[in-house]
Amino acid sequence: MASNSFGNILKFSSFGESHGTAIGGVLDGFPAGIEIDYRFVEQQLKRRKPVPKQGGTERKEDDEVVWLSGLEDNKTTGAPIAFLIKNKNHRPADYDTLKNVYRPSHADYTWQEKYGIRDHKGGGRASARETAVRVVAGALARLLLQKHNIELLAGVSQIGNIKANKTINEFTGNDLQKSSYGFLDPHRDNELDQLINRLRKEGDTAGGVVSCIIRNAPAGLGEPVYHKLQAGLASAMMSINAVKGFEYGEGFNAASMFGSEHNDEFEKKNHEIRTKTNHSGGIQGGISNGEAIYFSVAFKPISSVHKSQQTVNTDKKPEKIAISGRHDVCVVPRAIPIVESMAALVIADFLLWSKTSSVS
Amino acid sequence: MASNSFGNILKFSSFGESHGTAIGGVLDGFPAGIEIDYRFVEQQLKRRKPVPKQGGTERKEDDEVVWLSGLEDNKTTGAPIAFLIKNKNHRPADYDTLKNVYRPSHADYTWQEKYGIRDHKGGGRASARETAVRVVAGALARLLLQKHNIELLAGVSQIGNIKANKTINEFTGNDLQKSSYGFLDPHRDNELDQLINRLRKEGDTAGGVVSCIIRNAPAGLGEPVYHKLQAGLASAMMSINAVKGFEYGEGFNAASMFGSEHNDEFEKKNHEIRTKTNHSGGIQGGISNGEAIYFSVAFKPISSVHKSQQTVNTDKKPEKIAISGRHDVCVVPRAIPIVESMAALVIADFLLWSKTSSVS
Amino acid sequence: MASNSFGNILKFSSFGESHGTAIGGVLDGFPAGIEIDYRFVEQQLKRRKPVPKQGGTERKEDDEVVWLSGLEDNKTTGAPIAFLIKNKNHRPADYDTLKNVYRPSHADYTWQEKYGIRDHKGGGRASARETAVRVVAGALARLLLQKHNIELLAGVSQIGNIKANKTINEFTGNDLQKSSYGFLDPHRDNELDQLINRLRKEGDTAGGVVSCIIRNAPAGLGEPVYHKLQAGLASAMMSINAVKGFEYGEGFNAASMFGSEHNDEFEKKNHEIRTKTNHSGGIQGGISNGEAIYFSVAFKPISSVHKSQQTVNTDKKPEKIAISGRHDVCVVPRAIPIVESMAALVIADFLLWSKTSSVS
Amino acid sequence: MASNSFGNILKFSSFGESHGTAIGGVLDGFPAGIEIDYRFVEQQLKRRKPVPKQGGTERKEDDEVVWLSGLEDNKTTGAPIAFLIKNKNHRPADYDTLKNVYRPSHADYTWQEKYGIRDHKGGGRASARETAVRVVAGALARLLLQKHNIELLAGVSQIGNIKANKTINEFTGNDLQKSSYGFLDPHRDNELDQLINRLRKEGDTAGGVVSCIIRNAPAGLGEPVYHKLQAGLASAMMSINAVKGFEYGEGFNAASMFGSEHNDEFEKKNHEIRTKTNHSGGIQGGISNGEAIYFSVAFKPISSVHKSQQTVNTDKKPEKIAISGRHDVCVVPRAIPIVESMAALVIADFLLWSKTSSVS
Repeated sequence: MASNSFGNILKFSSFGESHGTAIGGVLDGFPAGIEIDYRFVEQQLKRRKPVPKQGGTERKEDDEVVWLSGLEDNKTTGAPIAFLIKNKNHRPADYDTLKNVYRPSHADYTWQEKYGIRDHKGGGRASARETAVRVVAGALARLLLQKHNIELLAGVSQIGNIKANKTINEFTGNDLQKSSYGFLDPHRDNELDQLINRLRKEGDTAGGVVSCIIRNAPAGLGEPVYHKLQAGLASAMMSINAVKGFEYGEGFNAASMFGSEHNDEFEKKNHEIRTKTNHSGGIQGGISNGEAIYFSVAFKPISSVHKSQQTVNTDKKPEKIAISGRHDVCVVPRAIPIVESMAALVIADFLLWSKTSSVS
Repeated sequence: MASNSFGNILKFSSFGESHGTAIGGVLDGFPAGIEIDYRFVEQQLKRRKPVPKQGGTERKEDDEVVWLSGLEDNKTTGAPIAFLIKNKNHRPADYDTLKNVYRPSHADYTWQEKYGIRDHKGGGRASARETAVRVVAGALARLLLQKHNIELLAGVSQIGNIKANKTINEFTGNDLQKSSYGFLDPHRDNELDQLINRLRKEGDTAGGVVSCIIRNAPAGLGEPVYHKLQAGLASAMMSINAVKGFEYGEGFNAASMFGSEHNDEFEKKNHEIRTKTNHSGGIQGGISNGEAIYFSVAFKPISSVHKSQQTVNTDKKPEKIAISGRHDVCVVPRAIPIVESMAALVIADFLLWSKTSSVS
Repeated sequence: MASNSFGNILKFSSFGESHGTAIGGVLDGFPAGIEIDYRFVEQQLKRRKPVPKQGGTERKEDDEVVWLSGLEDNKTTGAPIAFLIKNKNHRPADYDTLKNVYRPSHADYTWQEKYGIRDHKGGGRASARETAVRVVAGALARLLLQKHNIELLAGVSQIGNIKANKTINEFTGNDLQKSSYGFLDPHRDNELDQLINRLRKEGDTAGGVVSCIIRNAPAGLGEPVYHKLQAGLASAMMSINAVKGFEYGEGFNAASMFGSEHNDEFEKKNHEIRTKTNHSGGIQGGISNGEAIYFSVAFKPISSVHKSQQTVNTDKKPEKIAISGRHDVCVVPRAIPIVESMAALVIADFLLWSKTSSVS
Repeated sequence: MASNSFGNILKFSSFGESHGTAIGGVLDGFPAGIEIDYRFVEQQLKRRKPVPKQGGTERKEDDEVVWLSGLEDNKTTGAPIAFLIKNKNHRPADYDTLKNVYRPSHADYTWQEKYGIRDHKGGGRASARETAVRVVAGALARLLLQKHNIELLAGVSQIGNIKANKTINEFTGNDLQKSSYGFLDPHRDNELDQLINRLRKEGDTAGGVVSCIIRNAPAGLGEPVYHKLQAGLASAMMSINAVKGFEYGEGFNAASMFGSEHNDEFEKKNHEIRTKTNHSGGIQGGISNGEAIYFSVAFKPISSVHKSQQTVNTDKKPEKIAISGRHDVCVVPRAIPIVESMAALVIADFLLWSKTSSVS
């Protein structure tokens, strides 16, 4: 139950502030004997980097992973895998103006209230920079899932008020590379470019939705009744910065469906019991049923807007603030690998947990 | 991390099947010295009972709580509070026809796959009957929250395709009693009656949305970064049967807002730092900011439809099934106290957890 | 981390006070498909009952287990197994004299200090009666261990100042039934009788030591570095009432041995790697090595002495107290099944945990 | 429940192998606002370094702590405190001879059996080098305890067969500096020197006992029934390399005492309820009573003996082994700060936990 730890059997702990020496993580409970594909880990990290066209800023974040423990001849040993990503971009002085003021809808005020002290530099621990270590841990989890042929794929289904007309269920890995936003309507990048450019000029930001699908997960993952698979996924997603909503299967749409519409009838296909439809999103009664697991995650627009806003300072005096510096217009495309990583950690955790359900 | 336990400091464990001897729960970590208001607990339980008009069935569930431990002179002692609700309505024979068939979108198949064995009688452990013990535990949590003047209120914001035009933020406790559905548009009960009656005739079911608000929670609840307050709430809600989605604050709507719209500016009000708006839903950076916390929970239509459906039996042979017996048309109104109870358990848990953040 | 829960994968929670309605427990994470041998459970419980000759008192404790959940056709289903033992021996009035006085070396004072309230009746939650539910849970764990051919055996190696000249390593199940004390020197019951009788006359009590051996546990149990197998066993044993010490392998004796004496040399026996000696007690580096695991547990004399003692009451005024009523002279023989049960729960828990160390 | 994590509210996770890049730790749940005394941390680490006279070897271990996170202006922020100690003494080549052979009574064989892979270099993760990070975390815990005036002191009560005639209860901090072994009989260093020198010549090693006392801990620490304070201490101590036994209060000696001897009578002293004697070791019913908490920990002789031993290699073939290189004759004096550190972590954890027992 540690605040900065996550998972049950496969436990991930993270540490570090955005402008400290380093951020890092420790993955404990990871099975022995898995070979680490360092290139794969780097690729995942790269997917999280800001892309100017997407509305990302050009700041350089050269994320190099320093592996500290848990490996022997590039294989996991069962010991905790610790790693660091050094912060090369310390510029704490940039943040002096933020020391005594609470940025609207940031974590400044709440952290100060909770702890009586805070690291004001770029959000400190509350910064989305922390998610880089989730991607490293998630990449390791994916290596484990690959041994079981489990695949994960996420894409952007909405940016601002532009919604994709396709769903993640229609996609495989390569399709999504056609859109530089990872958008599920690969031919609408122009429309998105216009939105992003307009917002950049206005000093404003946009939110969006990331959808994710997990294929080939075996039936039997999920621990009823309080650790249903969807509860694990929801908790993981809601722990990501800026996330405001989670739904799986038909999600909120299910509320207006009838039971006879929503139910997934069973049939036998290739000697296996399968469902004809998959409104359930691959989970029934909190346990995976072998069908594709899919879900969506809503992100609010990021709070760092260049537009002037009203706020108060630490002396409770009113103050105007216009956040300067380099900030993304829309982080949603960068959230794709984060959503995949957290999903991979959850699925790997429940996969290990499921091994304890039977005697043999 | 036990499958059937929930919470961090305040830990609730539940047990029991729908048609076994009893269901029950154990609440551990509950502070000593709280007086139990047994009438209040009973009232909460009553709110969960089926109401015919709401589309509930008339079966009698006389839920009497047997208190087993943890109390001395009606006060909590710090020892675990265990309680039972006996199952008076055993009719296992009713369920013999379900022994060898998988009901679509129920937990039958997945439990069988996971455990190699299942209790087929009325859903067994997977039955929504389990939620009765959550309401008892939640009522105790509310007694704790009352000591801190924290209030919880939930109502129905959607049934089928009928959506309320008001939000939970506009309501206080008594308002919601005007609608027999706990609907947030108290004058549309007729419309709802018609929907329910039509579905009952058709042998079909409806889903809906429950919205909940928590008022007067102090700033400082929530444990970053993996146990943000919204992660705790989401996990709790997704553990409730039939829930398909969770959102807080602006939720999925936030995805199409601009940062300048969504941000909550700070101001000083009565010597306190407050936000002018509350798009954030009372949580920033994973920690409560003292504003009202509000969220919504989507429920799918229940899977027990009287209409005929295609499925397979345990021999993987196709079979037609039309679920007979007494089943609700729409359980959403009954979910109100369950949502409130799970929310109360989460808030109480984080309240206790927050006590450990400082030295004194 | 709940106060009243124990274990990692296999989680046992207990509840109930000695003079309340019932005591009980919930075993969660127990694998599905294990057939319950109810007679075996009853036998284990019987071994915990007071035997007059052993210095136990004659009070009747008819411990009947009421099974509440988690079973289907006498087999475990993977759902939590809850059970009750009703307290037939309520005589709260007997304890009125203890309401306002702190018995020396009992839990009265510390519970009052911690919680500001306590159940004074027979120790309430702090009573050794709670250990009955541990025996039930332990019996279930043993049924699981039997599937893996793992055997547990405990015996008494010391009562008062009478120490056995044999060790538990020399015994198998039936041998120990020769002594009505379960003593490891089966021919010294007379000596023990005399000690017990003398102490009964004097209104005094004796402590002792229980030794336990676990045979056929596979290599690989134990989770370094903080959950070494010995750490799990020690924590379990120290949670038993009146326990003051734990040692495994050579234990405290190892402190005066030389490395060359204490080391267990490896050899090949029947195609397997085995140790020639077993000073290590079957655990090396926190992980079982396939040899017999053995340990000892020291019990203080119970605190309820009939002799007059000086104490203070709840008003901090001095008072004389001579504890009346039926109390054991020496509980150590009754602790045998408790030690075995806690050991069985630990081994079963680590067995399940060990399944998560590898990929396949 | 992660293998490499420890604690409940205050959670410490460690990572790293003896001959990898670095060892390190993450302390999560540490309260905000505590000023770090870096010199104090260094001093504690120094106490763990080998001292030739004590039978330690002269290898240089320059343990410099690199602080990575969780601090702002030298104060804790409530965020996880991560730190590294780099391994300057990589000499993996030294260990090539150990790659294919199992050293008797080391963790080589059991880790190989459990994980199918192991880091053979100097014990890898199983090395006592890991305890350095415990001392860093323990030093932080002590800074927290100092705010509550809680003091810890450990000393050596036995080396080989030489037992001190005094107990830790008779000592305060400065007394123990008189013996270069931290021995509780400060005038017997000559005797110890002779033993160590003899063993060094013989290529053998010695064990011993460390005793520890905690003063000024408030009444109320400890979480019955499965997380009694002594269970937490025992588990922590048994997780230290080479520990074979734990006892508190009268410990194993209590087994031969009578109840009337062992009971601690209550009296009123300076308006407070105190015990006249303290056989209980400051804990009754699993909860601290405000008296001094004291306990002892038995260490086996270390397994790396220069004498020739019989063993098998990884091909199960017999082989002779004589461990060369620099190894301590007796590590017990170096264990003093480790025992204190683990005790400090336990007490700090239970202190934080105890804050959640009441309403206000």
